[in-house]
Amino acid sequence: MAPLTPRLVVPIDVKKKPWEQKVHLHNRWHPDIPPVADVTEGELFRVEMVDWTGGRVRDDDSADDIKFLDLTITHYLSGPFRIVDAEGVPASPGDLLAVEICNLGPLPGDEWGYTGIFERENGGGFLTDHFPSARKAIWYFEGIYAYSPQIPGVRFPGLTHPGIVGTAPSVELLNIWNERERKLIETSQESLKLCEVLHQRPLANLPTSENCLLGKIQEGTAEWQKIANEAARTIPGRENGGNCDIKNLSRGSKVYLPVFVDGANLSTGDMHFSQGDGEVSFCGAIEMSGFLELKCEIIRGGMKEYLTPVGPTALHVNPIFEIGPVEPRFSEWLVFEGISVDESGKQHFLDASVAYKRAVLNAIEYLSRFGYSKEQVYLLLSCCPCEGRISGIVDAPNAVATLAIPTAIFDQDIRPKRLGHGPKLRRIPDVLRCTYDGHLPATQDQMCLVMEVDM
Amino acid sequence: MAPLTPRLVVPIDVKKKPWEQKVHLHNRWHPDIPPVADVTEGELFRVEMVDWTGGRVRDDDSADDIKFLDLTITHYLSGPFRIVDAEGVPASPGDLLAVEICNLGPLPGDEWGYTGIFERENGGGFLTDHFPSARKAIWYFEGIYAYSPQIPGVRFPGLTHPGIVGTAPSVELLNIWNERERKLIETSQESLKLCEVLHQRPLANLPTSENCLLGKIQEGTAEWQKIANEAARTIPGRENGGNCDIKNLSRGSKVYLPVFVDGANLSTGDMHFSQGDGEVSFCGAIEMSGFLELKCEIIRGGMKEYLTPVGPTALHVNPIFEIGPVEPRFSEWLVFEGISVDESGKQHFLDASVAYKRAVLNAIEYLSRFGYSKEQVYLLLSCCPCEGRISGIVDAPNAVATLAIPTAIFDQDIRPKRLGHGPKLRRIPDVLRCTYDGHLPATQDQMCLVMEVDM
Amino acid sequence: MAPLTPRLVVPIDVKKKPWEQKVHLHNRWHPDIPPVADVTEGELFRVEMVDWTGGRVRDDDSADDIKFLDLTITHYLSGPFRIVDAEGVPASPGDLLAVEICNLGPLPGDEWGYTGIFERENGGGFLTDHFPSARKAIWYFEGIYAYSPQIPGVRFPGLTHPGIVGTAPSVELLNIWNERERKLIETSQESLKLCEVLHQRPLANLPTSENCLLGKIQEGTAEWQKIANEAARTIPGRENGGNCDIKNLSRGSKVYLPVFVDGANLSTGDMHFSQGDGEVSFCGAIEMSGFLELKCEIIRGGMKEYLTPVGPTALHVNPIFEIGPVEPRFSEWLVFEGISVDESGKQHFLDASVAYKRAVLNAIEYLSRFGYSKEQVYLLLSCCPCEGRISGIVDAPNAVATLAIPTAIFDQDIRPKRLGHGPKLRRIPDVLRCTYDGHLPATQDQMCLVMEVDM
Amino acid sequence: MAPLTPRLVVPIDVKKKPWEQKVHLHNRWHPDIPPVADVTEGELFRVEMVDWTGGRVRDDDSADDIKFLDLTITHYLSGPFRIVDAEGVPASPGDLLAVEICNLGPLPGDEWGYTGIFERENGGGFLTDHFPSARKAIWYFEGIYAYSPQIPGVRFPGLTHPGIVGTAPSVELLNIWNERERKLIETSQESLKLCEVLHQRPLANLPTSENCLLGKIQEGTAEWQKIANEAARTIPGRENGGNCDIKNLSRGSKVYLPVFVDGANLSTGDMHFSQGDGEVSFCGAIEMSGFLELKCEIIRGGMKEYLTPVGPTALHVNPIFEIGPVEPRFSEWLVFEGISVDESGKQHFLDASVAYKRAVLNAIEYLSRFGYSKEQVYLLLSCCPCEGRISGIVDAPNAVATLAIPTAIFDQDIRPKRLGHGPKLRRIPDVLRCTYDGHLPATQDQMCLVMEVDM
Repeated sequence: MAPLTPRLVVPIDVKKKPWEQKVHLHNRWHPDIPPVADVTEGELFRVEMVDWTGGRVRDDDSADDIKFLDLTITHYLSGPFRIVDAEGVPASPGDLLAVEICNLGPLPGDEWGYTGIFERENGGGFLTDHFPSARKAIWYFEGIYAYSPQIPGVRFPGLTHPGIVGTAPSVELLNIWNERERKLIETSQESLKLCEVLHQRPLANLPTSENCLLGKIQEGTAEWQKIANEAARTIPGRENGGNCDIKNLSRGSKVYLPVFVDGANLSTGDMHFSQGDGEVSFCGAIEMSGFLELKCEIIRGGMKEYLTPVGPTALHVNPIFEIGPVEPRFSEWLVFEGISVDESGKQHFLDASVAYKRAVLNAIEYLSRFGYSKEQVYLLLSCCPCEGRISGIVDAPNAVATLAIPTAIFDQDIRPKRLGHGPKLRRIPDVLRCTYDGHLPATQDQMCLVMEVDM
Repeated sequence: MAPLTPRLVVPIDVKKKPWEQKVHLHNRWHPDIPPVADVTEGELFRVEMVDWTGGRVRDDDSADDIKFLDLTITHYLSGPFRIVDAEGVPASPGDLLAVEICNLGPLPGDEWGYTGIFERENGGGFLTDHFPSARKAIWYFEGIYAYSPQIPGVRFPGLTHPGIVGTAPSVELLNIWNERERKLIETSQESLKLCEVLHQRPLANLPTSENCLLGKIQEGTAEWQKIANEAARTIPGRENGGNCDIKNLSRGSKVYLPVFVDGANLSTGDMHFSQGDGEVSFCGAIEMSGFLELKCEIIRGGMKEYLTPVGPTALHVNPIFEIGPVEPRFSEWLVFEGISVDESGKQHFLDASVAYKRAVLNAIEYLSRFGYSKEQVYLLLSCCPCEGRISGIVDAPNAVATLAIPTAIFDQDIRPKRLGHGPKLRRIPDVLRCTYDGHLPATQDQMCLVMEVDM
Repeated sequence: MAPLTPRLVVPIDVKKKPWEQKVHLHNRWHPDIPPVADVTEGELFRVEMVDWTGGRVRDDDSADDIKFLDLTITHYLSGPFRIVDAEGVPASPGDLLAVEICNLGPLPGDEWGYTGIFERENGGGFLTDHFPSARKAIWYFEGIYAYSPQIPGVRFPGLTHPGIVGTAPSVELLNIWNERERKLIETSQESLKLCEVLHQRPLANLPTSENCLLGKIQEGTAEWQKIANEAARTIPGRENGGNCDIKNLSRGSKVYLPVFVDGANLSTGDMHFSQGDGEVSFCGAIEMSGFLELKCEIIRGGMKEYLTPVGPTALHVNPIFEIGPVEPRFSEWLVFEGISVDESGKQHFLDASVAYKRAVLNAIEYLSRFGYSKEQVYLLLSCCPCEGRISGIVDAPNAVATLAIPTAIFDQDIRPKRLGHGPKLRRIPDVLRCTYDGHLPATQDQMCLVMEVDM
Repeated sequence: MAPLTPRLVVPIDVKKKPWEQKVHLHNRWHPDIPPVADVTEGELFRVEMVDWTGGRVRDDDSADDIKFLDLTITHYLSGPFRIVDAEGVPASPGDLLAVEICNLGPLPGDEWGYTGIFERENGGGFLTDHFPSARKAIWYFEGIYAYSPQIPGVRFPGLTHPGIVGTAPSVELLNIWNERERKLIETSQESLKLCEVLHQRPLANLPTSENCLLGKIQEGTAEWQKIANEAARTIPGRENGGNCDIKNLSRGSKVYLPVFVDGANLSTGDMHFSQGDGEVSFCGAIEMSGFLELKCEIIRGGMKEYLTPVGPTALHVNPIFEIGPVEPRFSEWLVFEGISVDESGKQHFLDASVAYKRAVLNAIEYLSRFGYSKEQVYLLLSCCPCEGRISGIVDAPNAVATLAIPTAIFDQDIRPKRLGHGPKLRRIPDVLRCTYDGHLPATQDQMCLVMEVDM
């Protein structure tokens, strides 16, 4: 009876480039990216992964790496893994693949991460109109805890998770993705009212062969070119799971993924030490390299049995999951509300995105009263274990969203008190900064003037 | 040292009509609705309230009362209360009013509630295009637990809360509300893209004197008419709090409300025995009459100190709150994902409302496999303690929303299993039904046909 | 479909004496105390109860009522209830009676409680050798919260529960109780080594007709005299449940009680607003009058099926229970350890009682550094939601016990810090005091002298 | 800014014997065992450790290794570490050493553990009179989860912790330990009444040079001989912490240890993947090798400031600790009660150890109805995350202890149900067994006979 150390199927050397790793990585979704290993259901296996940028962001004093990062490189994924049952029969389309996350964490020797604000011209973020410049904060880990020299006075346990877990799409599903996202872009911004409030651009990222990495398929070959032109980008979450950035997919959780191709072709990447709901600053989690220990089970026919499609085809399904038992536990939360009225005072109709934007802005304004810069709070709310809720979605015209922040992560009491009580320390240093070279106007805090004269 | 029984400031007799109650109720927001009582900060006081419809929905076998309910009557509120400090000085604009919910519950002798689907022509709900007909389920309480004869096999502890807690708006704030909501309606539906997915109507409810109740101001007088024409409807949550329907505003929580008028003029109503995040079926909580035991504190100048406005005026703020320590505790959750692709397969841009709609539809489809009708699940997800999260809001073009359901509320194991395991009981009876007299087409589950031939 | 208000089977008027109540109370365990009501399984019913002393302790400025309380009166119980199934067949010996606590709380209009230290000559407590004098603190309730004018700076949500829930013993079981407790007393103190550390007296309370109340059986009759001479005192918990003082038997919990007589004859009393594990000061919970809403189920044959006896007869069983879902939730705890070495430095063998005594003493000493008197802390640890654990029971010779205190109940940070940080406020006023009229020596804090000269 | 990988101060090679490790280990407490490394406060450092037996128990099919294990070898500890501040000044007697457990876990490549019952003649356990024979179960880890081939049907997340964390005693404290434990043994068993119920032997383990390992001090030298004759055994927890076996000292927790010698001389060992309160079968945790990542802070003068002695000298103190934020979270518990009446029916006075013994026996009997052997349950309750509470300690003559078991660790519903419901699967295989070669009588389940004829 030998000890059950997980089988290492993808080793990572963080000193090497993504394309130099011993087992090939990939950064696109496509059914023809060849599996790097077979995995048997019930088997415990270990997958290591680079951070989403493959090491482009460094532990240094400059935010330039964030500012100039080329998003066509992302995300570097480990896999795909072909999942077979005990008899060697691979998972088939229509099955459900249960993936249990038995363990995960940073790679030994690489216990640090970063969180950043992308420049508005280069990817932006949820509040890019308020925070258009590139920023960076480094986080160091002390076991389960993270702290940042750039955001003093907070320390919290990580709810570590992979941003991306997904199965490969079939050709048919891939076509659906490419078509609907192309249509979104073509529709143009004028007809999309939400674009007036959410300024992140581009609207979607279509296939591009630029910086495309496709496992062992050699760059420049005809096969590579064909796949690269079709393969979906990894940025959004979709029917196959993918970059859902669900912060609760942590230790002990179990994802049920639909299977679209033979073998399921499971891939994973984009490890986060911690993330807040929404991951608002875009590169908002504490991004890092890391490892996963996984166990798979094939539920034959389970996709049909359990995942009723919602949409025009049988492929319009979404994964489901169970939460694990060891999430960090907080008993006290300070909660900010937002309604679907935007910064200009315009009323939107039951729009949870607008409401959440306002809740996040409210939280940033509030916490900046406690000695933080607004950029510090924006980064903090992106990566700390805060919860974003859709509280009301039917009381027309206002959606109500809430953002709940655990008070225990701060070294001061952040609750409202009678004036004169409670510290208002000045927090220094601040996050790492860059100039903004773009030309788009920032959304002003228009009330600043008003407040001088009013009330 | 006399025992500290809370002072009863609003008694309710549920056998009487809302306008027959001993202390006058009101169903609009306006600064000129006169306070019904003074309350001193630090004092524990008890407020009783009718259900949001003032007793129009009955514990019987028909959903007709839901179908024909006139929404101009809602919501009947208790208050306003003028809050003063120990010296008798009232709260002033610019203060923050901390309201602690020390206790709450159903009224003794009236321990039941209801949840309903409104007809599409009469208010609708989040999924009104899928469920256009009126439906009703009755819930009975066994102490902390609720169960419904119409939705067998579930029982859960209530996270009881008032749907509405708010302060009176100033004239200036009232004008802002009326103007922006009027503009929304006038803009017309064509320019509002979210309206293509969210079919709830009307887009907003403007002031109307119909069924207007304004405390002790006598109907028909000039004063009444003036106020009735200006007073804001209570349906949406706004800067003053109001109908935020935040399910976590339960026992032991504390809301910090901005003060806009002298005395704050605090009102409350719309008690919910339990509600899920979003309250998706609109009349989705377990609606009931009830009581609150409250304690207020005035934080002088706290609105300026803590609530930085986000918007064009100093009044564009939102309340914040702290969560109480006795929320029901669940350790196991099954979670459904949704992305911002609608039922027709159309891609939306980072739209959390669309994503949440899909997550809820996914959950309904899934749970209906376990022996429930879809209407049963729709009503259940409206009122059970499920959590709706904005998980990802930056990975363009897909917002990712999640809906987490505590598995312990079911009497069967609802997790996916290898086929042949797990009960699939037929749950009878079903919810109470009405015919649909409207003419709008329902959103079809288009994949039904597809599934026969595909995969 | 009438609303399901619980049927009130025992109403209480707190202005009346225990023997003047409309439905007869009792304060002894005996199979021949006649049931006051039949209850059908599945039925929700409401039981009101006096506090354990029947109103002898008052909300005033003196601890004299504690000092001179006659313990032969306790505990006044509501019941017994004869439990029958839907066909009217009563529960039978060998069945298991599942009692669900659907709700509970203080009686409206009587929202206060008290906690006390009994004089060493009159009942004592866990630390009576350290705290031999009578003390009292009054607690007022603000909904779910309690606070005491005598113990400033703490406020906590109640984990409200009945100290006593039990079924009537059979004659056979009653005889077992009386015999083994008589033998304990007769064995005398010399042979009981634990008595050297635990100074509470008497060792047990044998039947006495003094102050005996037996429901509707009239005092002085032959029947009364016979029962009074046999009936067991209510002070200890036993095989029938009884005064187990388990703080987690709160809202939503479910107790499975063995049935020893026809009808089960369920009784309950001794309501506690809150209690710490161990209830160390004896009258240590926040004692109050109150109400319970209960629902019973008869598991036929369940006692034999589930409760294997441990002891010489088939009656040597104990109840089991399930914890409810709405216990107060704390995430941060400060924990004190104790080992089985007593205050004189003597080593005991794996004695968890000695270890727990030391853990409690350690906690008292520690917290008294934060501005409290030791009596304040002793009372606080008796009634706040602290947890007492048997951490190690096998590492001879030391048992290790721990006492965990939720830090959120204090208005200051009680964790150890570098010196000079953190408040050390003087807490005034103090608990209500009496002189000690006894003659027994207190256990000295012997290290006081030592500390002056040593280290 | 280099990544903060913890400094490895004690590496372990599990293929080597304890005395062959690169950094010397030790298995006694003594002030003269030389430190193996200096650690600066604030520094994150990594300590690896062998399992408590140094590899004597194997992952095989026999329980012989448990049966014949020589307890004089235990526990092999890593350390001592000399703790200094940033200026290099070591911790001093009277300081408090705050040790934060930032992370911990099994050693990579050695992900398994074992739990055993020691033979009554060789150490025994809490229920050794019921289970006198040696038994063993192997546990394998799947990330955060453990399962055992010998105890099918259960799987649970580990609340991993070091059984032992402690500082070195001063000579004065060491003398106190040796004297009081020698006196316990000399007093002889007759005068110790608890010995009639707790049959674990010996009563205490006095110093012995047999198998003594003292770091780099060479065996056989005069220095070694002197220390070996004086050094305290590691089995019990004491004033310095030591083998407290507190299951909650897990990730993120913080222990405050008194400092008795210059440098504090911190040692640690006895890693447990998981343990139940009490660790009832003695070798009851899931024993394993492992690693700790620690961070220390010196609170100058903190021992005097915070730890008031309870006992005859200033050294009679105990550590305190804070619980970490990532303990496994369970919402449903089945709880067993026990009172201080032993298996023979004899009444004990407020004895929590007797009460807890009965609670554990009740739980074993109950769970064995669900298809388990009693030995399986005994081992399970030793190592699963169950909680042992002192619920009542003042209601003479009965102490009430409770044992709470999380129901989610079982693959069947273990709650009581109406007969005929719920599975009663036969669980095979069973734990690994040995014959019992001793001569002591087992405590009979005396009711077995009774049950045939009675009730």
